Amino acid sequence: MADRLNVCIIGSGNWATTIARNVGNNVANSQLMEPKVNMYVYEEIIEGRKLTEIINSTHINVKYMPDFVLPMNIVAYDDVVTTARDADILIFAIPPTFVNSCCKTLLGKVKPLAHAVSLIKGFERGDDGQILLISHLIMRQLKIPCSVLVGCNLAHEVSNNNFAEGTIGCRDQKYMRILQDLFKSNTFRVVVTDDADCVEICSTLRNIIAFGAGLADGMELNENTKAGVIRRGFLETLQFVDVFYPGSRLATFFESCGLSDLVTSCYANRNRKLAEAFVKTGQPLNELESLLVPGHEPLGPVTAELVHIMLKKKGLEEKFPLFTAVFRICTGVYPLSRLVETLRYAREDIYHPNHIFPL
Amino acid sequence: MADRLNVCIIGSGNWATTIARNVGNNVANSQLMEPKVNMYVYEEIIEGRKLTEIINSTHINVKYMPDFVLPMNIVAYDDVVTTARDADILIFAIPPTFVNSCCKTLLGKVKPLAHAVSLIKGFERGDDGQILLISHLIMRQLKIPCSVLVGCNLAHEVSNNNFAEGTIGCRDQKYMRILQDLFKSNTFRVVVTDDADCVEICSTLRNIIAFGAGLADGMELNENTKAGVIRRGFLETLQFVDVFYPGSRLATFFESCGLSDLVTSCYANRNRKLAEAFVKTGQPLNELESLLVPGHEPLGPVTAELVHIMLKKKGLEEKFPLFTAVFRICTGVYPLSRLVETLRYAREDIYHPNHIFPL
Repeated sequence: MADRLNVCIIGSGNWATTIARNVGNNVANSQLMEPKVNMYVYEEIIEGRKLTEIINSTHINVKYMPDFVLPMNIVAYDDVVTTARDADILIFAIPPTFVNSCCKTLLGKVKPLAHAVSLIKGFERGDDGQILLISHLIMRQLKIPCSVLVGCNLAHEVSNNNFAEGTIGCRDQKYMRILQDLFKSNTFRVVVTDDADCVEICSTLRNIIAFGAGLADGMELNENTKAGVIRRGFLETLQFVDVFYPGSRLATFFESCGLSDLVTSCYANRNRKLAEAFVKTGQPLNELESLLVPGHEPLGPVTAELVHIMLKKKGLEEKFPLFTAVFRICTGVYPLSRLVETLRYAREDIYHPNHIFPL
Repeated sequence: MADRLNVCIIGSGNWATTIARNVGNNVANSQLMEPKVNMYVYEEIIEGRKLTEIINSTHINVKYMPDFVLPMNIVAYDDVVTTARDADILIFAIPPTFVNSCCKTLLGKVKPLAHAVSLIKGFERGDDGQILLISHLIMRQLKIPCSVLVGCNLAHEVSNNNFAEGTIGCRDQKYMRILQDLFKSNTFRVVVTDDADCVEICSTLRNIIAFGAGLADGMELNENTKAGVIRRGFLETLQFVDVFYPGSRLATFFESCGLSDLVTSCYANRNRKLAEAFVKTGQPLNELESLLVPGHEPLGPVTAELVHIMLKKKGLEEKFPLFTAVFRICTGVYPLSRLVETLRYAREDIYHPNHIFPL
């Protein structure tokens, strides 16, 4: 029998902890996998005890998920190299801003044939000011392939065993089934595609659209306008992927990473709330961000900024009127009223998915 | 110069009255159109006066839109034949159950080269128990082509000059621009396609999906589940159109009649509320329907029933698990819990739009 695959999880926040239950249970029931899963935990002292010790003795991540019991085969370590050095599959679930330094620490210390999976929602700012997908950053730094798992799956809903879906964008054909079996559960449905860039960028662009939807909410423009923002945002997403990540497939937009994540974000997400508050209070965005959405996930305004840089380099601002309008409203260049003007006057012909993806 | 086109509106409810403002203003400013627009009003006595007389003297439809002034060139008639006999374009905006009798009255009394446009959201039950699209019913009865205008455009939002979008499915190439110019306004964006069946059936199938979303809301299954219902419903819509209205185009689903109308319905629509109440109260659907949604528009349960008849005739129930589950939950054959089971176990491969619409 071939050697079993060893899996580790790098990260110990809500989402890392939530997914650790699925991963722990799945490897324990698999003939292909090593039953023990190492988990890298950023060490903290909680009431006089180390967090790693608490997790390893009580199987509870008291810092992030105090009501949630981890499988016994998840073992916490405070050192990322110890956690990852024997792993064949490295699951990254840390804030995007920590990825670069984490990879620098790991470079040369992981198995050369290891496969990474990013569960990170967000992106980094590339040296050129453009969006750098987290999976690209990991691949560049660690020199190993990196798949992604994103989708419409709020951690607290998954941890409560509510139904949720995720999409894996897998960069190695032979890992497609392995990764699906690693993450899925009875209530967490996982669909795998090889369209990895599209999966990841969909999940990123929705931040802009949800922010736009929140602007409409803040202006109390009602359901029709919000639906217009969502529709146009979806079409600009198709077009953006076609320009910047060519070769993507239309089917990917119908997965959880696309349609589901977009719709949910436009009704429930933090970007939406941030935009609504921006309109209603008139306060600067940076003040509201730290007030309303403390954390590490990049938000609509910064996504819009980086996307704008990418569009500008290609002279495409006018072909993406919604993305452009959201950026310029964030920076005060456009008044709020420009959001609806954009929906009213945007050219229709450039958007047709039949043009982008000829049938 | 060619003869100007004469336009009439058949109906005087909220939506008929709302759109009459756009139509009245647009014909008044057009070189192609007769400036006077006849409007058929179901006669009623309001505080001792005929409704048609009130409308013609005050330009206010006191019955349905008391705060809304109609253009002066909209002239009310209490007789549908008088209203329509000189018309080149007949705009139907009456409840779906009245269409059949109205067409019988009009048969042989309208211009043989007239063009109809249905603004009716809904459908009729065909003799075979299947869905009969309203535009098909009008064409069959009146022997003239019938286009449709539907989309994400709640009457009260359009009448308040909030932004909204509509989709015209046009059955005659030479009317495409004419109809767009007839209905649009600065705040009402109208996109025209020739994919008329797809436009109309999209707008119908969303009733089932919104009902499914409401079931999820009623069970308090949270955002991820609801997003799963929307995603699956969208995919089953693609597939349903492919089976029953072949030759439709994927681009049509991205218009207001598709994505926008679906999303809005799943968050704000009466079907959603009906389903939520069905779960929370346990009362029979027919009692709740008359209580919560008095009116003429067909709702999720009856849409699901007719769709189920269509699927059953082709032996396709299992290939449309969400539509089938909603129907069977409505009739008590399935327990509520089956909704999530459906999302969990539905086969993925049958849905791929790349299969349905090969790229």
